[in-house]
Amino acid sequence: MKNIVLKSLLFLLLLINTAYAATPLPSWNDTATKQAIISFVKQVTTIGSPHYVQPSDRIATFDNDGTLWAEKPTYVQDVFTYDRIRALAPLHPEWKAKMPYKAVLENDKAALDALSFDAWIELVLASHGNYTTEEFNQIVKYWMAQARHPQTGRLYTEMVYQPMLELLAYLREHGFKTYMVTGSNQEFVRPWAEKIYGFAPEQVIGSSFKKKFVLQDGAPVIMQLPEFSSVTDGDGKPVSIEQVIGHRPIAAFGNSDGDLPMLQWTTAGKGLRFALLVHHTDATREWAYDRKSSEGKLDKALDAAKANGWTVVDMKNDWKVIHPFEKKY
Amino acid sequence: MKNIVLKSLLFLLLLINTAYAATPLPSWNDTATKQAIISFVKQVTTIGSPHYVQPSDRIATFDNDGTLWAEKPTYVQDVFTYDRIRALAPLHPEWKAKMPYKAVLENDKAALDALSFDAWIELVLASHGNYTTEEFNQIVKYWMAQARHPQTGRLYTEMVYQPMLELLAYLREHGFKTYMVTGSNQEFVRPWAEKIYGFAPEQVIGSSFKKKFVLQDGAPVIMQLPEFSSVTDGDGKPVSIEQVIGHRPIAAFGNSDGDLPMLQWTTAGKGLRFALLVHHTDATREWAYDRKSSEGKLDKALDAAKANGWTVVDMKNDWKVIHPFEKKY
Repeated sequence: MKNIVLKSLLFLLLLINTAYAATPLPSWNDTATKQAIISFVKQVTTIGSPHYVQPSDRIATFDNDGTLWAEKPTYVQDVFTYDRIRALAPLHPEWKAKMPYKAVLENDKAALDALSFDAWIELVLASHGNYTTEEFNQIVKYWMAQARHPQTGRLYTEMVYQPMLELLAYLREHGFKTYMVTGSNQEFVRPWAEKIYGFAPEQVIGSSFKKKFVLQDGAPVIMQLPEFSSVTDGDGKPVSIEQVIGHRPIAAFGNSDGDLPMLQWTTAGKGLRFALLVHHTDATREWAYDRKSSEGKLDKALDAAKANGWTVVDMKNDWKVIHPFEKKY
Repeated sequence: MKNIVLKSLLFLLLLINTAYAATPLPSWNDTATKQAIISFVKQVTTIGSPHYVQPSDRIATFDNDGTLWAEKPTYVQDVFTYDRIRALAPLHPEWKAKMPYKAVLENDKAALDALSFDAWIELVLASHGNYTTEEFNQIVKYWMAQARHPQTGRLYTEMVYQPMLELLAYLREHGFKTYMVTGSNQEFVRPWAEKIYGFAPEQVIGSSFKKKFVLQDGAPVIMQLPEFSSVTDGDGKPVSIEQVIGHRPIAAFGNSDGDLPMLQWTTAGKGLRFALLVHHTDATREWAYDRKSSEGKLDKALDAAKANGWTVVDMKNDWKVIHPFEKKY
C-alpha cells in the first residue's frame, strides 16, 4: 500500500516537472528569440552535450536600466538624485542660484537633459555622499517604497520586465549564477534588488562610491564618501566583472551601447556563448527608441549584434506582456 | 522487500549522518576554542534558536596569510614578487644597480626586510603589471605548481592549515557563504584558491590592480595595469567587504592587527557574532610569534580580543595537526 502511494507521488511529481519543463518563459511569444535562449541553455546544461559547461562557470550578467526595468522618461537613479537635491535644498540656500542645482530646483527639463557629465556627477555626489552605508540604505529603501513613475503611476519596482524576471528564474533553475552589472550606483540598487529581482547584494555590481572605515565613539561605521571608486558603464562593465567575479560570463544581456564591451568580452571566450540585446520596439505598450535616444542609446551595439549574430529581442513581437501588473494568467 | 531495503538504507544514512555530526573539526582538540565555534554555529543555524540567522545572512570572512596558511619566513606573494623580479631582470639591466631591485637580485634579506612600503609597491607593480588577466593567471598557476617553502620543502599550497580547512567545510555545510579577505592581491590568489580552499574567484577579495578593457585586433582583452585600485589590509578589509559583498559578516577569522577592523566591523553588528584570532604559539610544529613579528604582527588585535571576549586559537594546544601532510587518521 505504501509502495503504491509512493509510486503515485513520484509519478505526480514527474508529471508536474514535465509540464513545467514544457513551458518555460511563459511571457515570451514562441519566436526565434525564445527558441535561441532555450537552445543555448539546453546545450550548456545537458550532460554529454559538446557545449556542456560545469555549474561554477555558468555566469550570466545583466544590465539593469532598459534591460530589466524601464529607463524612460528618465533613469530612475536620476529621479532619485533630483528628489534628494530638492530634499537637501533647505540646508543649501546657495543652490537656488547655482547650476546645476538651480536646474533641478526649477525642474528645468531642457537644462537637465543638457547637463554635462561633470555636472551630473556633482549632483550625484552632493546627494549621495557623506552618509554611513546603513543610513543611505534606509534612505533608498524609503524612497523606493513610495516614488512613482510619472506616466504609469506605478512604483518604479513595478516597472520591471516580466519576461526578464522569467528569464532570470529560468537561468537560476539551470544552475546559472546571475549578476546585475549596472551603470547605476550599486549603493542605490542593492537595498531593493534582492526583493525585486532575487539578486543578493554581492550579485549587484555597479558604479560605487569610495568608502571609509571610521570609529564613532568606539563604534565602527563605514562612511560613503562623495567620490566615485568605479564607474561601471561601457568598458567599465567587463573591467568590474573581472575585478569582482573573476570569471568571464558565458551569457550577457543588455540593451544599449553601454553594454557593448560586456557583450564583446562575454562572446570572445571559448565555447558556446550567448549575447542578447533588448530592442525597445513597442511604442504602444512601452517606448520605441534606439539610435538617437538620450536614455539607452542603441546604435553601435545594434550593428555589432547584426554582424555577430547576437540575439535581439523585438519587444513588440517577442514579449506577451511587458510588466508584471499586465499579466492576466 | 523493497520497503525493507529502503528502510535499511535510510537507517544507514542516518547512522552515517549522526556519526559525522558527532565529530566535526577532527583536527581540533576538544578545548574551549572548538566548543566556542560549535556553539556559535549551532546557535545561528538551529531553527527556533533566539540567535537563528537565515542562510543568506550567514557570511563568514577569512584572512589568508597566517590564518589559512603559513606566512613565515616570508609572505608568499613577496616570494613570488622576488622570483618574478629575478625572471624579468634580463630585460632590465639597469635593475642590477638600482634599489629596490638590487636588494632582490642580490638576495639581501636585511635590505628586503627594511624596504619602505613605497619600495615594496614598486616591486609588486614592476613584477605584476602590464599583463592580460589571462596571462597573469597562467604565470601564477605555473609558479604555484613548483615553488616550494624554503624550510619544509613543501609546495606553498601544502602549507595550509588543516584545522582551518575543516572549519571552512564545517561552515559551508551549515549554509555559510565563506569569503577570503586578504591583503595579498586577489589576482595572485584567485588562480589556485578554488582548488586549495574551495573559494570560487568571486569569493576571494583582495588588493587589486586597475584594469583596462582593450581591443587587440578586434579581440577584447583585459590588461592588468601597474597601479593599485584597492588595498585590502586594515581598514581596507571592512571597506572592501562593504563594496563587494554588501552585507556585514556574522563571523570573521584573522590572525593579525591587519584583521582588527574586519573583526570590529563584524562584531559591531546586531545579533550573535563570532570573531576568532589564530595565535601562533607553536615554535616546534610551526612558529611562535605575535607582538614583535614583521609578518602577521598581533598586538592591538590581541588586546582587543581579550577586552571583547573574542576567541583566540592557541595553535599549540588547540590544533592536533597543523598541515594536511601531518595527518595520520
